[in-house]
Amino acid sequence: MNPEVLIIMGSDSDYPVLQETTKMLTTFDIPYEMHISSAHRSPAKTEALVAGAADRGIKIIIAAAGVAAHLPGVVAAGTILPVIGVPMGGGALNGVDALYSIVQMPGGIPVATMAIGKSGAKNAGILAAQMLALSDVTLAGKLVRFREEMEREVEEKDAQLQLHCYDA
Amino acid sequence: MNPEVLIIMGSDSDYPVLQETTKMLTTFDIPYEMHISSAHRSPAKTEALVAGAADRGIKIIIAAAGVAAHLPGVVAAGTILPVIGVPMGGGALNGVDALYSIVQMPGGIPVATMAIGKSGAKNAGILAAQMLALSDVTLAGKLVRFREEMEREVEEKDAQLQLHCYDA
Amino acid sequence: MNPEVLIIMGSDSDYPVLQETTKMLTTFDIPYEMHISSAHRSPAKTEALVAGAADRGIKIIIAAAGVAAHLPGVVAAGTILPVIGVPMGGGALNGVDALYSIVQMPGGIPVATMAIGKSGAKNAGILAAQMLALSDVTLAGKLVRFREEMEREVEEKDAQLQLHCYDA
Amino acid sequence: MNPEVLIIMGSDSDYPVLQETTKMLTTFDIPYEMHISSAHRSPAKTEALVAGAADRGIKIIIAAAGVAAHLPGVVAAGTILPVIGVPMGGGALNGVDALYSIVQMPGGIPVATMAIGKSGAKNAGILAAQMLALSDVTLAGKLVRFREEMEREVEEKDAQLQLHCYDA
Amino acid sequence: MNPEVLIIMGSDSDYPVLQETTKMLTTFDIPYEMHISSAHRSPAKTEALVAGAADRGIKIIIAAAGVAAHLPGVVAAGTILPVIGVPMGGGALNGVDALYSIVQMPGGIPVATMAIGKSGAKNAGILAAQMLALSDVTLAGKLVRFREEMEREVEEKDAQLQLHCYDA
Amino acid sequence: MNPEVLIIMGSDSDYPVLQETTKMLTTFDIPYEMHISSAHRSPAKTEALVAGAADRGIKIIIAAAGVAAHLPGVVAAGTILPVIGVPMGGGALNGVDALYSIVQMPGGIPVATMAIGKSGAKNAGILAAQMLALSDVTLAGKLVRFREEMEREVEEKDAQLQLHCYDA
Amino acid sequence: MNPEVLIIMGSDSDYPVLQETTKMLTTFDIPYEMHISSAHRSPAKTEALVAGAADRGIKIIIAAAGVAAHLPGVVAAGTILPVIGVPMGGGALNGVDALYSIVQMPGGIPVATMAIGKSGAKNAGILAAQMLALSDVTLAGKLVRFREEMEREVEEKDAQLQLHCYDA
Amino acid sequence: MNPEVLIIMGSDSDYPVLQETTKMLTTFDIPYEMHISSAHRSPAKTEALVAGAADRGIKIIIAAAGVAAHLPGVVAAGTILPVIGVPMGGGALNGVDALYSIVQMPGGIPVATMAIGKSGAKNAGILAAQMLALSDVTLAGKLVRFREEMEREVEEKDAQLQLHCYDA
Repeated sequence: MNPEVLIIMGSDSDYPVLQETTKMLTTFDIPYEMHISSAHRSPAKTEALVAGAADRGIKIIIAAAGVAAHLPGVVAAGTILPVIGVPMGGGALNGVDALYSIVQMPGGIPVATMAIGKSGAKNAGILAAQMLALSDVTLAGKLVRFREEMEREVEEKDAQLQLHCYDA
Repeated sequence: MNPEVLIIMGSDSDYPVLQETTKMLTTFDIPYEMHISSAHRSPAKTEALVAGAADRGIKIIIAAAGVAAHLPGVVAAGTILPVIGVPMGGGALNGVDALYSIVQMPGGIPVATMAIGKSGAKNAGILAAQMLALSDVTLAGKLVRFREEMEREVEEKDAQLQLHCYDA
Repeated sequence: MNPEVLIIMGSDSDYPVLQETTKMLTTFDIPYEMHISSAHRSPAKTEALVAGAADRGIKIIIAAAGVAAHLPGVVAAGTILPVIGVPMGGGALNGVDALYSIVQMPGGIPVATMAIGKSGAKNAGILAAQMLALSDVTLAGKLVRFREEMEREVEEKDAQLQLHCYDA
Repeated sequence: MNPEVLIIMGSDSDYPVLQETTKMLTTFDIPYEMHISSAHRSPAKTEALVAGAADRGIKIIIAAAGVAAHLPGVVAAGTILPVIGVPMGGGALNGVDALYSIVQMPGGIPVATMAIGKSGAKNAGILAAQMLALSDVTLAGKLVRFREEMEREVEEKDAQLQLHCYDA
Repeated sequence: MNPEVLIIMGSDSDYPVLQETTKMLTTFDIPYEMHISSAHRSPAKTEALVAGAADRGIKIIIAAAGVAAHLPGVVAAGTILPVIGVPMGGGALNGVDALYSIVQMPGGIPVATMAIGKSGAKNAGILAAQMLALSDVTLAGKLVRFREEMEREVEEKDAQLQLHCYDA
Repeated sequence: MNPEVLIIMGSDSDYPVLQETTKMLTTFDIPYEMHISSAHRSPAKTEALVAGAADRGIKIIIAAAGVAAHLPGVVAAGTILPVIGVPMGGGALNGVDALYSIVQMPGGIPVATMAIGKSGAKNAGILAAQMLALSDVTLAGKLVRFREEMEREVEEKDAQLQLHCYDA
Repeated sequence: MNPEVLIIMGSDSDYPVLQETTKMLTTFDIPYEMHISSAHRSPAKTEALVAGAADRGIKIIIAAAGVAAHLPGVVAAGTILPVIGVPMGGGALNGVDALYSIVQMPGGIPVATMAIGKSGAKNAGILAAQMLALSDVTLAGKLVRFREEMEREVEEKDAQLQLHCYDA
Repeated sequence: MNPEVLIIMGSDSDYPVLQETTKMLTTFDIPYEMHISSAHRSPAKTEALVAGAADRGIKIIIAAAGVAAHLPGVVAAGTILPVIGVPMGGGALNGVDALYSIVQMPGGIPVATMAIGKSGAKNAGILAAQMLALSDVTLAGKLVRFREEMEREVEEKDAQLQLHCYDA
């Protein structure tokens, strides 16, 4: 099946965090491809990946990077596909640098910015699904059930709290 | 024409900033509706606006709020439509509070966060267009021309700089 | 005995921190109930918990959440009972995001915000006691003795310092 | 009528902001007294104001201060009455210093912290009303109507937006 | 020998950090006394310690505290002796809260603020020595030798670097 | 009369703020000299001013600087006299850069850091007086009366508040 | 004369700040060219400007940008010439976003980062001169005289302070 | 071979981080010398190292320091050679203090500031090479090959990702 989502990470060290993204895409049966390519160390590769994306059927690009995280903005500059940016945590500034570098895009070139780290990586996968569900009723149904499942999990955890936690 | 984008602002004081959003939607001929509704002062109205959105043809929700900006997250909790969050600047913390309140969503409920203030409001309109363009070739063409136009504007400003600015 | 305090936490991972709260409520013999319910993943459950609170005798609600911590504000929007918010630490921003999301409430809907993490959780329990003591002389007496006890503990630790610490 | 709320401000320059508090107390017919007294420049006066508060019928203390805002914490150390802290904005750090100085209280002595500046001052008055309403049904009714009024105002502003704002 | 420096710490957990202070005072043969007393949990004890300080020969007070670190400011409000404040690190905000709470004193009541944590604790002892050396030539001589010793240590470490570190 | 305090400012633009310092020194009849000298633009002049300070009777140095405010630390490195640092506000970071540059001194070379801007400049003058008062009973008396005066001013402002402010 | 320095600014609104740079380059008789080109709105133009720079004799590139300031990093990725980055102030985050986006470059692609705003723009011109002076003795001489001039200016301002400022 | 780069670190604890710098200088066959010298604890040694640098053939100075990191600015004040500043991480503020102390230099004395910690140390070595390559074609060639090598490494890591990572 043709990949619909392209995930680009600035460094292979981002891979474990981005498994939160791929888990979500797999949950929603969304085919994806994934590449390591840096805005700074391999700009030509990054440009090529993005320039050809729409033509080979990619609909959404998820770009993750840390510190001076230029990758999502650079990717967004090269395509009119929606770009989702995931700031990586870690480093001296714990991801605040990555967050500001991704979210504070000037008017004209948006990047849909997620939370720092694993929550953001997970939500990138879900947001991609929400965008694709705009023209895919089956996927919309899966998203509804995913929400119901989350609600049920909260309910179960609360039920367990009622049973066990007042003894202490 | 049926509105495809619902804009919700937490306060009427956000209106001037959100005109950046409506200008963009108008540029791309995307019909929208716009409402004032607070997550805190009118939670029932907010819930109703969101709950009925998909059924009346809304595809994307843009939510803007300042300070403890809960509106985008609360809206996102009530729909599987993509939600774009715009942090309003101003206040003692200049919008950092709004940014953190919007972008740091826990895993499960994404909000596509934009830059603080006018740039973010403008980009919210463009990102909405980029999402809708996934299934609308005409709109995609408009986005391509919008990019070319931006590029041309940079070129013109640079040309003017070459002509006039070395005299000083 | 009817619970007078309702504790809501956004995630079961907040439970260990909130034991600081329940220890205090137990110290002051204040009956409480405790629930896990998320502003985002289980908004209907949250709404129901809050809407019925006053009718089943709840007087004060303590809401704890991390990152984009909307729970206390959302709870406060649904009740006129005093709401105490406890920002959870951790995450990339160490709880500053939670603090700003809870404390920077717009005019109209107050949340009594505590310190980030364990100190805040402990103080939430004490503040609840202080509010209830406004119409409960026995509880006021317990609070006075709790203060005296804290003072005595400082005195003892200082006495120990005088005995042992100058040898080094 | 006997004052039930004591407002202490660290400096007379805080007075205009605290009028947001007194407006709310007046709205809810709650008698109050108001004093200028500094934690640092007039510690004896501050101590005396607080020590005698409960005996002369005060039920809640609202303390407002800026920069190294020790006043709310110092007040809270001298009473078991609930203390609401309002961080004043302004200064080089725009009130972040006041916020941290007030909210980050160690375990044992809570201060119910409000937002920085006018919103916080307004909410201090409302939170005081919410605490007093725990044993005052009439006041509870006023709070319910206040909420309904806020909701109505949002509704009206939204109605006006529908009428006028799409012309531009 | 009569203590000339009074060290007050807000909590016994500050003790290991303050050993940096006592080491310095011992180096300079400055007699000191040390107490645990909290601005919030034992305000009367704190007030008594400070009020009697000058009369029993204390010349300088060093006050250390963390989070909403009111202790140095409260101490300074009760004496005209120079007060040195040491912000403790740790906690969710890593000592930034303590730093702002100590350094941002309003005009009228100064606190000589040191760096966060161990460096600050060490420097508090040295600054106390520098103040006392204003009227103690012997102590001034010790300070000069202490500086020379620091310089010599840098020289030795540099010499070792020249010998060993270029092999790698 | 021989100057006992040396004030060094990094730029003449700091002069208006430092008048808060000189007003205080004048209040306490402390003779001072004042110089403009930069740590970066005139390092030799700075070094010379500091090196000769003790010999010409200077007892305390007050150094004020903004942005990357190295002046107080550089001054402290050149003398064993107590050095008081005043961070200037303004600039893109509003004085946080100056505060961190001054207060975060490594162990060995203390700088007694004041609040950012005018309050800090005023307190620098008062702290200098407090240090000098350690061996000057007359000055100590002036400091006591200064404190009493501040207390009286608070009392007067509070009295005025009682008279006039409840009419509104 | 062939330009040796290429100045690129992300927006024409940066022009007034960059006049601090051109003033310095003019002072040191360094020929330059100046272009407006955005990393996001005109990536191809930016790439072309940088790719051809070395061949047309450019030795140093100065890149200035605000908010999510990717321009300096993107420029640095396209050349081995030294790149000096100038963070523009303004915007909701006052240039902290631009600073972090420019300075926090990952290992491999350095950007020589200057202070936020006018000081940084001025220093960019001076640093360029310092780099070029490594192989240009005449330029080195100009830099020495520039330093002497700065020192003289400090001396003059201090002299004026001695004459006039003690009257007040 | 005569050293062309002088590395000064404020403390021997910075040595492991600066090995990132020396690795790069070794990669590019650039001879260097390395010294420990503090701006505060050994100002005379620092001054001497810098004053004589140009005369013994040094072309670029790299200065690394943490907390109130005055070393790079103090070094830059003493030479017209380009100075590269590396902020060390760690400490209570994780290097933000060092970053601000280094980057926010006033107009007149530039410091080419790198990222906090290891990335910055590595980039300091590369930037030094880029400056020296302005008049050294062989070195320029090495820099081009270094860039190609980085690109190849990204390509290889991406190739490995394609082979192995989709199984999970």
